Amino acid sequence: MAFIQTDTFTLRGYECDAFGRMSIPALMNLMQESANRNAVAYGIGIADLVSRGFGWMLMRFNLRMHEYPRYGQTVQLQTYPTLVEKYFIHRDFRLLADDGTLLGEATSTWLVFSIEKRAMVPMPDFIRSLSVPAGIDPQPKLPAKPAFQTTPWQPTDEKLVTVGWFSIDQNHHVNNVAYVQWLLEAMDNETLQTREIAEIDLVYRTESHWNDQLRVQSALEAPDTFLHRIEQQESGKDVLLARSRWR
Amino acid sequence: MAFIQTDTFTLRGYECDAFGRMSIPALMNLMQESANRNAVAYGIGIADLVSRGFGWMLMRFNLRMHEYPRYGQTVQLQTYPTLVEKYFIHRDFRLLADDGTLLGEATSTWLVFSIEKRAMVPMPDFIRSLSVPAGIDPQPKLPAKPAFQTTPWQPTDEKLVTVGWFSIDQNHHVNNVAYVQWLLEAMDNETLQTREIAEIDLVYRTESHWNDQLRVQSALEAPDTFLHRIEQQESGKDVLLARSRWR
Repeated sequence: MAFIQTDTFTLRGYECDAFGRMSIPALMNLMQESANRNAVAYGIGIADLVSRGFGWMLMRFNLRMHEYPRYGQTVQLQTYPTLVEKYFIHRDFRLLADDGTLLGEATSTWLVFSIEKRAMVPMPDFIRSLSVPAGIDPQPKLPAKPAFQTTPWQPTDEKLVTVGWFSIDQNHHVNNVAYVQWLLEAMDNETLQTREIAEIDLVYRTESHWNDQLRVQSALEAPDTFLHRIEQQESGKDVLLARSRWR
Repeated sequence: MAFIQTDTFTLRGYECDAFGRMSIPALMNLMQESANRNAVAYGIGIADLVSRGFGWMLMRFNLRMHEYPRYGQTVQLQTYPTLVEKYFIHRDFRLLADDGTLLGEATSTWLVFSIEKRAMVPMPDFIRSLSVPAGIDPQPKLPAKPAFQTTPWQPTDEKLVTVGWFSIDQNHHVNNVAYVQWLLEAMDNETLQTREIAEIDLVYRTESHWNDQLRVQSALEAPDTFLHRIEQQESGKDVLLARSRWR
């Protein structure tokens, strides 16, 4: 069986930013929710994995926004797996207006880890054997190591964040979306007030936990792009690397 | 015309805390959303007020949780005005499970301010004249100045918070719910890990704005109650006073 998950959401006030546009963290939260529901339909939900000693880890995420929906608007979110490889599974997302206009799209790469070994493992057979939906038009596979991960750069801005209670999930790991909120809230005032995200590309590196201190760093890369890094203050380990493009 | 707003919500993963219980900020966000929708039905929504030079301000909010819904559960939220006075309007909320069990209830007091004067004004006629629904059983009116507001106390814990971009609404004021998240995230680890909120009582005092620095203070009042204060670091003004009861 193959499943395309389709969810309809009407935007709530607190899901929109100060300009009434859907906020990126709110959108990513809905994408995560739809992905969970689709995984459950496939029998590969979080609970299905835990019962076999495994867990999901998001490794890459790329979101492009074409047009922002606004407060009260009804949108449709579609998500489905596009490709299963030995170590990775790829998942696409499409955000549509009620007239079918493509408002945004995202693609993501996930891996499976063994809870006991705390290490990445090849896709277990019950995941490896799943069928992706017919008739889909998958987005290009994301590079596992994009240039912004491998080319060193110096931050020009840094803010400290402490991981709070409402940013952790039931595994006591930080929710993937919380990092994006911290990264965006660390941006300079003028960018937040005058521009909007056209694209954001994320590399998740290490987990962090409740009460961890994180350094949220950024630097201007080009007139319309920024580089971002979130690292654990104590260990210096990279938690997230990112590149954002604004318009 | 009189309106009872009834919304049905299925709890999403990110609306639940590390124990899978609906989080208090998520619940308060939904309550605020339902209150907005009910106000729009009555012709007293934010936009209706702005077009006449007015704005809503939340002054008091009291929430009691009897039982926490969990991830995936469908809940019903009801809200309606219960009483309109010269200066205040009162609004109740009821959170129900799908079998009708009362999971939580809240009551709130709102005032109207003049945008031009930046000051409280008597309820304009178009609000004063509204009809509350028939057959409701209003919760007791909240005291305008509860004891925890008038009795001085010394904080034993303090954390600093900077108001981030995603905590402000379209008026560039901090969302009422953001304060509650900061107040709860400033609690000690043991309380967050071993207890749950039975009741929280809030007094909103002053607005705060994007990039403001806030001091989030607390002290144990009794074995199961805490006092909380959020003040502007620069002016020392009280933004929020609160009392929470845990079990």
